[in-house]
Amino acid sequence: MATATMVGAAAVKAGLTRPVGCVSALPDFGRVDLPGYGDLVFGGHDIAGGSVPKRAEQLVQARVLPQGLPELVEPDLVAADEEIRPGPLRDGAAPRAAVDAMVADLEDFRARHGLDRVVVVNVSSTETPLADPPPPEYLSLAAFRDALAAGTGTFPAGVLAAFAAFTAGCPFVDFTPSTGARPPALAELADRCRVPYAGSDGKTGETLVKSALAPMFARRALRVHAWTGTNLLGGGDGETLADATRAAGKIESKRRVLAEILDHPVDDGVHIHNVPELGEWKTAWDHIAFEGFLGARMTMQITWQGCDSALAAPLVLDLVRFTAAAHRDGRHGPLAELGFFFKDPLGSREHRLERQYETLVRWANGLPGRRS
Amino acid sequence: MATATMVGAAAVKAGLTRPVGCVSALPDFGRVDLPGYGDLVFGGHDIAGGSVPKRAEQLVQARVLPQGLPELVEPDLVAADEEIRPGPLRDGAAPRAAVDAMVADLEDFRARHGLDRVVVVNVSSTETPLADPPPPEYLSLAAFRDALAAGTGTFPAGVLAAFAAFTAGCPFVDFTPSTGARPPALAELADRCRVPYAGSDGKTGETLVKSALAPMFARRALRVHAWTGTNLLGGGDGETLADATRAAGKIESKRRVLAEILDHPVDDGVHIHNVPELGEWKTAWDHIAFEGFLGARMTMQITWQGCDSALAAPLVLDLVRFTAAAHRDGRHGPLAELGFFFKDPLGSREHRLERQYETLVRWANGLPGRRS
Amino acid sequence: MATATMVGAAAVKAGLTRPVGCVSALPDFGRVDLPGYGDLVFGGHDIAGGSVPKRAEQLVQARVLPQGLPELVEPDLVAADEEIRPGPLRDGAAPRAAVDAMVADLEDFRARHGLDRVVVVNVSSTETPLADPPPPEYLSLAAFRDALAAGTGTFPAGVLAAFAAFTAGCPFVDFTPSTGARPPALAELADRCRVPYAGSDGKTGETLVKSALAPMFARRALRVHAWTGTNLLGGGDGETLADATRAAGKIESKRRVLAEILDHPVDDGVHIHNVPELGEWKTAWDHIAFEGFLGARMTMQITWQGCDSALAAPLVLDLVRFTAAAHRDGRHGPLAELGFFFKDPLGSREHRLERQYETLVRWANGLPGRRS
Amino acid sequence: MATATMVGAAAVKAGLTRPVGCVSALPDFGRVDLPGYGDLVFGGHDIAGGSVPKRAEQLVQARVLPQGLPELVEPDLVAADEEIRPGPLRDGAAPRAAVDAMVADLEDFRARHGLDRVVVVNVSSTETPLADPPPPEYLSLAAFRDALAAGTGTFPAGVLAAFAAFTAGCPFVDFTPSTGARPPALAELADRCRVPYAGSDGKTGETLVKSALAPMFARRALRVHAWTGTNLLGGGDGETLADATRAAGKIESKRRVLAEILDHPVDDGVHIHNVPELGEWKTAWDHIAFEGFLGARMTMQITWQGCDSALAAPLVLDLVRFTAAAHRDGRHGPLAELGFFFKDPLGSREHRLERQYETLVRWANGLPGRRS
Repeated sequence: MATATMVGAAAVKAGLTRPVGCVSALPDFGRVDLPGYGDLVFGGHDIAGGSVPKRAEQLVQARVLPQGLPELVEPDLVAADEEIRPGPLRDGAAPRAAVDAMVADLEDFRARHGLDRVVVVNVSSTETPLADPPPPEYLSLAAFRDALAAGTGTFPAGVLAAFAAFTAGCPFVDFTPSTGARPPALAELADRCRVPYAGSDGKTGETLVKSALAPMFARRALRVHAWTGTNLLGGGDGETLADATRAAGKIESKRRVLAEILDHPVDDGVHIHNVPELGEWKTAWDHIAFEGFLGARMTMQITWQGCDSALAAPLVLDLVRFTAAAHRDGRHGPLAELGFFFKDPLGSREHRLERQYETLVRWANGLPGRRS
Repeated sequence: MATATMVGAAAVKAGLTRPVGCVSALPDFGRVDLPGYGDLVFGGHDIAGGSVPKRAEQLVQARVLPQGLPELVEPDLVAADEEIRPGPLRDGAAPRAAVDAMVADLEDFRARHGLDRVVVVNVSSTETPLADPPPPEYLSLAAFRDALAAGTGTFPAGVLAAFAAFTAGCPFVDFTPSTGARPPALAELADRCRVPYAGSDGKTGETLVKSALAPMFARRALRVHAWTGTNLLGGGDGETLADATRAAGKIESKRRVLAEILDHPVDDGVHIHNVPELGEWKTAWDHIAFEGFLGARMTMQITWQGCDSALAAPLVLDLVRFTAAAHRDGRHGPLAELGFFFKDPLGSREHRLERQYETLVRWANGLPGRRS
Repeated sequence: MATATMVGAAAVKAGLTRPVGCVSALPDFGRVDLPGYGDLVFGGHDIAGGSVPKRAEQLVQARVLPQGLPELVEPDLVAADEEIRPGPLRDGAAPRAAVDAMVADLEDFRARHGLDRVVVVNVSSTETPLADPPPPEYLSLAAFRDALAAGTGTFPAGVLAAFAAFTAGCPFVDFTPSTGARPPALAELADRCRVPYAGSDGKTGETLVKSALAPMFARRALRVHAWTGTNLLGGGDGETLADATRAAGKIESKRRVLAEILDHPVDDGVHIHNVPELGEWKTAWDHIAFEGFLGARMTMQITWQGCDSALAAPLVLDLVRFTAAAHRDGRHGPLAELGFFFKDPLGSREHRLERQYETLVRWANGLPGRRS
Repeated sequence: MATATMVGAAAVKAGLTRPVGCVSALPDFGRVDLPGYGDLVFGGHDIAGGSVPKRAEQLVQARVLPQGLPELVEPDLVAADEEIRPGPLRDGAAPRAAVDAMVADLEDFRARHGLDRVVVVNVSSTETPLADPPPPEYLSLAAFRDALAAGTGTFPAGVLAAFAAFTAGCPFVDFTPSTGARPPALAELADRCRVPYAGSDGKTGETLVKSALAPMFARRALRVHAWTGTNLLGGGDGETLADATRAAGKIESKRRVLAEILDHPVDDGVHIHNVPELGEWKTAWDHIAFEGFLGARMTMQITWQGCDSALAAPLVLDLVRFTAAAHRDGRHGPLAELGFFFKDPLGSREHRLERQYETLVRWANGLPGRRS
């Protein structure tokens, strides 16, 4: 997904493609002062290995990117590749040392490129959810810092990334359902560092459809009895989520949308199935059993065949642009107005897509610097 | 559909069923002063024949109504049956005579029951669309009256029903895609008689889904290339719409929604197929081919298996309640605020379901007599 | 399923319905000397409770049986009900005592009605599969009898039912995927008692489709990479199979068909999901990812919406008729020729539906007593 | 399709790909003496224009062929391209002159390459069906020749191609539903020239599935009430078949399979819809409404997403190999044993796929020259 994002930004900048899938490029945001695609500089911490140009070529083979495109934007991909650093936790580094290394990398990156700000986006694999309630070291910043210094406690990579981002004064966007910036200790740090953050879990496929369609049943007073989802995933995502404990966070995040939109309990099982043959593609099948007037039982079925990286990449660019604008505007804490992009929106319980869009448009057009 | 409406109203009135599928019974309308289900008195002009209790029994056989329900509300069905008059055009009556008969029936019905108002709802079969532009006799009320008196010109039953309703001072709701109250001559009459009207073509299935889902593609900047629909219909509806000239109006009405919601041309073929075996049920299959970031081609498929009468009947009750309230409030002309219920909303080009709902809530709650 | 079988046999006998779904009533078997529907007498051991007429009424409510049918065959249902005995294991009886009680019931039933033979059919819920390899007491009849007498070892109800049937000289049909008559100890007993048996696991829905469709891919040299199945089940079946250990046997049985028909390894995950709302109905969705010429990737999807009891009941009647004829003909041991009816055919590895049908036709028409 | 066939033959010959989709390469035919892929020499009459290598590149863009493959077999494609002649009817030539030109081309091609035989395969667009009964000039060879000489009568290109093939002593395979070799005049010529022919209309997608699946309903005594098909086609095929008169032949051919397999009348509507966006790909949706025991109504839905050229090309190679072997063996007239490959098999009314396959295996293994 990170590679598709970088190739796409370069292609849009160079005018090689229309910004299809880019929400921030819609006319509704035409007067909002957002950073241009050409103003973005990419870098990252990588745990998977492989150079950016090589991965772009793999995406061509996987039919995610059009043939020939990576070659046309090769200088941009090489430049990004030079700014990729190994994931600091990869070689068994202590959490504290990893945080320090990430902070140093972020500050160095910002200084060398003379950037106004750096937005950190977590696009790594889903992590096992933290215990609920969270362990004591997550309940306050002081406790968290003590545990980190002492090397006690559990620190998933996504939490450390958020901690490092905030410490370096960088906004943080969590495109995954992992713990990230949610615990009180992290929220406290973001406040103190006066940086905004957004999340969680990019809404790109089945849940996107649910958030558009579930309001239809609610508005028409139709009673949904069971909304059952099956997700066939290939690629690394399928493998990660075949692990039940890791999948738990994803599934929980996917289920929230129905519980919030429909005003009655729904049997909303979600099943994730690893089908390596599908590669970068995903097929979701949803079966909705609902009741109409006088007890009539009806059904609706949906099959969604999408490419997750092609759906997610333009949203990553949108989130970077909106979050950067929020940071420029001095916002800190959770950006509830970006709930449109997420399965589990931080700071909001609104899941209806159209309402989320209205909120986004209103907020973005209220930011300073509106063009006339 | 008319029978299901009458059985349903009686069942809701008697507390035998929850008003599932009834929009006007949602909490958002809890304080709006609408006529109660028990305040409604039913009558009608019928072209199909068969008593109301007998047809209710057929709906039980067709699995539209639950077994045993018609017996529980039999007195209401018998009472309604006594108010059913033969369609005045049935025996080859002249249009003018038919109008006069309908006006007399409406006035007599209103007087005998001491009703505040009568709302006329057209739930008959789809008629062949009028030529476009309409014939000269449709361009002004005077010309229309002259032609009617002279017995020249073409007068579909739905047009005469609207004319009679307005003449008798009754609001008119068109649940079909037929011409109805749309031509200038009728609009002029409605204005003169100071009655409101609403239409056209109840949005109950495939188009309902489109109006909820197409905004998702627009909001996410995904480019829909082809949205192809296949409708398998049984019952009389399938037979009527197997006739290409009659289907034309229906299909045109179904296509409008995409053209309005998406800001680019879409290949939006709709095919209607008569499958008598399906009886009262309908299956629609939609195939959506769309483009995401960097040219990625994706698809979505939808299968909708619904019972049209169970979906339409509660909306008929909603429309009667809202239209009666509008009439009581002195509204006349097209009720654009009821666009939520229609495939081809008179007086409005807004097709996005959520926006239509917001409009409806705002308007209804602004009606006089709001309960606290 | 048992109730639907008894109602159906009575309805076919009385000429109230055509034998739709009854394989043995096809013209291909028109000259085979099979017991008539009117020659069958029903009885059973029941663990669920509830009288036969009452359950028939529940099936009407669940839309499995047509309204009014149970009343028309009530005498048959009452007669059957009088021959239902409580499951002998229900009240915590020792396995040995339960076997003795079942044998006595079977012999008494046969004697009282003056029957030529009694065919025992297991239509109870799926049991947890036996360990593999089976425990030592299952390896020989002697060891089994010793363990039964001593009250040591594990004896699922289905195993005891097979043991009792064989002991009473009755053929046994296993419509479930449970252990039943498969272990060596039972096979030895069937041989010694000279009775035939057939199984396992009636092929009624998703697996039926697989056994008809998988040969298409094989014959056309198309390479199936992944055939993924999702089963939404309501009713008691869904609940039982939501239990992973019980589902294991069912899933294993469902998967066998692809492994045998396709000559290469296939990713063939099957997922079972309990959706109580579906009641007696079942929806299966299969997604098949396959490869054609020059690496082209294609897919096929299937949605099957069926009523398991309506699909299974006529097959139970077929199995009783064919197994009775085999017994009359002196056959003993596993009836591999009945593989057509089963997901996991005892005595055969042939899963291709058309081949199984050819085998059945050839065998049945070779039975003595063919009519001219 | 022709281009995919030539690229595929070259790739299989060179060992660059496994012969996935090639029926004649299955183990069941391992001992049959068929021409090797490397023994085939390609030429053709083309009406569409564009060189073979260029079209191969277009198929890569359309994701039918893997990237890089055409380059690897370029010499073969260039060699084939040199043997492509313009369609002789293209420039308004008289039918008689066109036939003469084709005969000369075929004889020249065979002589220059020193070939044992040339198999002519019609893979052009579907033509408007001939009137039924056919015009008088089609009823005998003499009448046909007279009309051809006189330049009177209607002569579709496919008929002339068959006439030219037979005249030149070449077997003819009709992969289209067009008239081709079916009329008596052509059959008489084939007999006189002692050449075999096969057809009609390659069975590659929806109809293939029907021929595998319809027997399942028949064997299980399930009553199919309605089997409705919708075909979304892109590319040239979609455009051609959007023309109702041309589509008529295709649809008629598609419908035959159900009428023959099921022993009762079926509502079997087929709808073809042109969706240019789909390019070389095709999506078919089939809805099957069927009845089980005691009137239970059930449904099955199928979605097939395939690439027609990738499905058809290997069958063209199979047909060439089998037809060549039949010719070598002295067979003439219609090759009913090749019905496995066709929607509308010449010389046979058997449509059940498994039966057709058994016939093919038996016949092919009975050909002379079987390897041990």
